[in-house]
Amino acid sequence: MPLPYHTTRRVEFRDTDAAGIAHFSAFIQYMEQTEHEFLRHLGLSVLMQDAGGEISWPRVSVQCDYQGAVRFEDVLDVDLRIERLGSKSVTYTFLFQHVGRPVASGRMTSVCCRLDPHHPPKSLVVPDFIADKLRPWAE
Amino acid sequence: MPLPYHTTRRVEFRDTDAAGIAHFSAFIQYMEQTEHEFLRHLGLSVLMQDAGGEISWPRVSVQCDYQGAVRFEDVLDVDLRIERLGSKSVTYTFLFQHVGRPVASGRMTSVCCRLDPHHPPKSLVVPDFIADKLRPWAE
Amino acid sequence: MPLPYHTTRRVEFRDTDAAGIAHFSAFIQYMEQTEHEFLRHLGLSVLMQDAGGEISWPRVSVQCDYQGAVRFEDVLDVDLRIERLGSKSVTYTFLFQHVGRPVASGRMTSVCCRLDPHHPPKSLVVPDFIADKLRPWAE
Amino acid sequence: MPLPYHTTRRVEFRDTDAAGIAHFSAFIQYMEQTEHEFLRHLGLSVLMQDAGGEISWPRVSVQCDYQGAVRFEDVLDVDLRIERLGSKSVTYTFLFQHVGRPVASGRMTSVCCRLDPHHPPKSLVVPDFIADKLRPWAE
Repeated sequence: MPLPYHTTRRVEFRDTDAAGIAHFSAFIQYMEQTEHEFLRHLGLSVLMQDAGGEISWPRVSVQCDYQGAVRFEDVLDVDLRIERLGSKSVTYTFLFQHVGRPVASGRMTSVCCRLDPHHPPKSLVVPDFIADKLRPWAE
Repeated sequence: MPLPYHTTRRVEFRDTDAAGIAHFSAFIQYMEQTEHEFLRHLGLSVLMQDAGGEISWPRVSVQCDYQGAVRFEDVLDVDLRIERLGSKSVTYTFLFQHVGRPVASGRMTSVCCRLDPHHPPKSLVVPDFIADKLRPWAE
Repeated sequence: MPLPYHTTRRVEFRDTDAAGIAHFSAFIQYMEQTEHEFLRHLGLSVLMQDAGGEISWPRVSVQCDYQGAVRFEDVLDVDLRIERLGSKSVTYTFLFQHVGRPVASGRMTSVCCRLDPHHPPKSLVVPDFIADKLRPWAE
Repeated sequence: MPLPYHTTRRVEFRDTDAAGIAHFSAFIQYMEQTEHEFLRHLGLSVLMQDAGGEISWPRVSVQCDYQGAVRFEDVLDVDLRIERLGSKSVTYTFLFQHVGRPVASGRMTSVCCRLDPHHPPKSLVVPDFIADKLRPWAE
């Protein structure tokens, strides 16, 4: 099984709420930021141009389970894995830990799409130059 | 089966992204806003005081599946249902439609907790004065 | 002096922070939402198409002064006025009150621009069909 | 004149909007994140405990002027300076540049306050252990 892509995120003040803890939706933002950072690490981007126009990755599904609370300025360890590399989509999993304790785990499926400003996104077989870079990370 | 609680949300400009559509995380915010509006409709709040201190509802799980894209200023119909009323938690489902077309469906589980600024939230049997108001909406 | 455009905003839970009050940046979002609601009230939009392409209103300046704190579920009265209608820009002011007490006041200048996905926004004399609708609200 | 505190921020996808550029409110978030990072750099925090309870820094004023647009994944250079260190407040200025070109400049005044969950924040003379660390950065 390939190693995960690892990064960190610090809980910003704006990520907290009046319950004094990081708001659950902050993890959804961390998941997306980690996906994008991972694509940059591979020399890719979530928003790319090729000869046919603009390619992006709208999400078809996202979920997150919460096991613990974190507070302002806590630093999170984030592990991204590719659970499934499909012909037109990628499913990522995310594990969030704080000082070795799991605090949240997420899953997100992004579909490779052609973007057009005047039509809905249209799914696309993941181009080879992208799939070749993702494959080594797939379980 | 009880009727859903119905409300609407308009896609604000800040909810959009450079792909020209509502960002997937905006639906997570709409889900939470709808839950809170529903609790207010029942004369409750997601943040209440009783004799024992502060009660709130941290989420243990959230998910959303996306079927279609919506754009700035589109108005969404939102239906909230209580899928399960547990002894210490509530599981809500959400259906988002735009002009009669489903665009997203979500599920969120909130756990009734006692809040203390210096300790992690601690789960609590849903007090009767709350459970009595939620029960008629449970399927 | 023309009457202000009046609307309300409720402090959502996501608008609060670990200090237990509405985060100062939430007012920046309320200002923009109010501007957009005002434009819709006039039959306009902050993002419009005409024969020349897409017109939008990037901000060149925003400011907000805070006089008081508000909390989750507080309802704010918002008054928008047009302080200045320029040939290429509009300066709005905003007054936020909670139960009759001023809590914040803001100012925002938006410039009428032609948008092109591959170039920076370019300023534009406000088209007559827009200026005619704004003028009655200008002081 | 002291050197500024320097950091960088990358424009995240969630920071963009349907005009294809970073939303103006993202800079307000970057300003606050930079203030907090600066305080951490000094061994302080925007949310501290002392013998008298909780100290924080609500903002009384924020402003930002925009000179240019930036896009997804652009990296911003951020310079923070202390324009004025008052007895009860700090005024920061912020300069944002992208590849050497100014894109935004901001100013924010934060007031030192004692927090109490059941009362409005109350201003406080900046304690010496904090003022001593800020003074070398004041112009």
